[in-house]
Amino acid sequence: MSLLVAASFFTDVRVVAVVGGDFGADERAVFDRHNVDTSDLEVIPEGKTFRWFGKYEYDLNVAHTLDTHLNVFAGFEPKLSDGSKKSRLVFLGNIQPDLQRGVREQVPNAELVALDTMNLWIDTTRESLQKTIEVVDLLIVNDAEARQISEEPNLIKAARKILSWGPRTLIVKRGEYGAAMFTQNEYFAIPAYPLESVFDPTGAGDTFAGGLMGYLASQKTLDEAALRRAMIFGSVMASFNVEEFGTERIQRLTHDEINQRFRDFKRFTHFEEIPFDGKVSSFKSQVSS
Amino acid sequence: MSLLVAASFFTDVRVVAVVGGDFGADERAVFDRHNVDTSDLEVIPEGKTFRWFGKYEYDLNVAHTLDTHLNVFAGFEPKLSDGSKKSRLVFLGNIQPDLQRGVREQVPNAELVALDTMNLWIDTTRESLQKTIEVVDLLIVNDAEARQISEEPNLIKAARKILSWGPRTLIVKRGEYGAAMFTQNEYFAIPAYPLESVFDPTGAGDTFAGGLMGYLASQKTLDEAALRRAMIFGSVMASFNVEEFGTERIQRLTHDEINQRFRDFKRFTHFEEIPFDGKVSSFKSQVSS
Repeated sequence: MSLLVAASFFTDVRVVAVVGGDFGADERAVFDRHNVDTSDLEVIPEGKTFRWFGKYEYDLNVAHTLDTHLNVFAGFEPKLSDGSKKSRLVFLGNIQPDLQRGVREQVPNAELVALDTMNLWIDTTRESLQKTIEVVDLLIVNDAEARQISEEPNLIKAARKILSWGPRTLIVKRGEYGAAMFTQNEYFAIPAYPLESVFDPTGAGDTFAGGLMGYLASQKTLDEAALRRAMIFGSVMASFNVEEFGTERIQRLTHDEINQRFRDFKRFTHFEEIPFDGKVSSFKSQVSS
Repeated sequence: MSLLVAASFFTDVRVVAVVGGDFGADERAVFDRHNVDTSDLEVIPEGKTFRWFGKYEYDLNVAHTLDTHLNVFAGFEPKLSDGSKKSRLVFLGNIQPDLQRGVREQVPNAELVALDTMNLWIDTTRESLQKTIEVVDLLIVNDAEARQISEEPNLIKAARKILSWGPRTLIVKRGEYGAAMFTQNEYFAIPAYPLESVFDPTGAGDTFAGGLMGYLASQKTLDEAALRRAMIFGSVMASFNVEEFGTERIQRLTHDEINQRFRDFKRFTHFEEIPFDGKVSSFKSQVSS
């Protein structure tokens, strides 16, 4: 939900998903207000929507999965409508990797296909997950997942290994520490937006992915520079998302508010590129300790 | 040691410290090669030099203190020579906060006094530590320490509280996640230099502080822009330090190598400041999930 709403600020969005009878008029109204195309939204009235139960550590940085209820996702076999099959950008949300690969095969002409996953699939369907990673352009995971998928404790080695499987790009979410992007020859890293009150970190990762994908969809060229800006816009959307419960804050957002935080990111990360001239200045200066 | 060697690449360095009889000719030779002024280095032949024992988690990010042997530091009462008292910049290394305050009082004209500390002093001498924080310009700690000192789990709130006690600047070291700087009105954050092999993280924090203080000492104006560049140079020095044991790598460093990584940091953090124009481009773009 937060992913789709976040993306909708930048582009037209379609959803391919299955929900249960608990998905009600309120949720549908949110989609309507944000022009989310729900042609491919399957409803199983007698089923229940997917739910994740977790808890956060005191600093809200580490999430522990207590339980994952797949519910209606367990029997999901996504079939894309002709409209969805023509999508230029596709985000494969966090479902069983065989199903993700099934969707990927239905969009052979997509310019960029991104992939999300979680520890459950890494633990239980490792081989299938790797096959799916091999056929996408962009993997978006958190740093614990990147280490777990690659079985490399060093994140740089983990990134190199994952990129060797096929994706052009790996984006690693780091919670309050920001995010990093790895490509074959480049590395890019940004801090998180500094917030004094993090009300609800749930959905921050989804909002990040939504802002990122939505912004990319608005760009003609999906090059390194566009990906870098997309990471900032993703982080901006995530920063708003955690300020209130659910999607309440991002639903009210304006483009001015979004651009203001985008500019803040420039301010938070800018420094002058003046190398050290190799000489101690003539004025006496000392460091004692 | 790593602090002084790192700083020596940018400025003249004096050391005010006490060591035991185990401090030998090899250590002294390192100081000599880097022109470290040891007039204020007290030697207690029958004593033992301060030692910290710790272990690192699998990702080398979290250090756990197993034991701290104060040894000769326990009876240390630093008295600065006239030369040291004239220092423009002073770094108060990690010793008992009463002693740090004693040194601070001996350099009333210093332009910038920075402070280091550790969990031992936060646990056992909280009140004295706060008094010392009140009379310095810059506090350099890791993020767990910032939270512990301020008793605030949110780092932004922690920073605000610490700055309210007196320091103009707080720099927070975040290991593999880089570092952040807080002042009254600004926030600045950088990633760590991406390294595939972290051989020995011991001393990374000290090397960071040394590079940072040394670079600042080489600068005429200690403004926000200089502090930002100093954080980069500190991170550069730390990135070299962890590649080999002890100070072996940084002892061999050249200014070209240092400036190369400084430029890398620009490459790793740069993005174009092009706000979103608020319109979905005409070419069809969609995000499905």
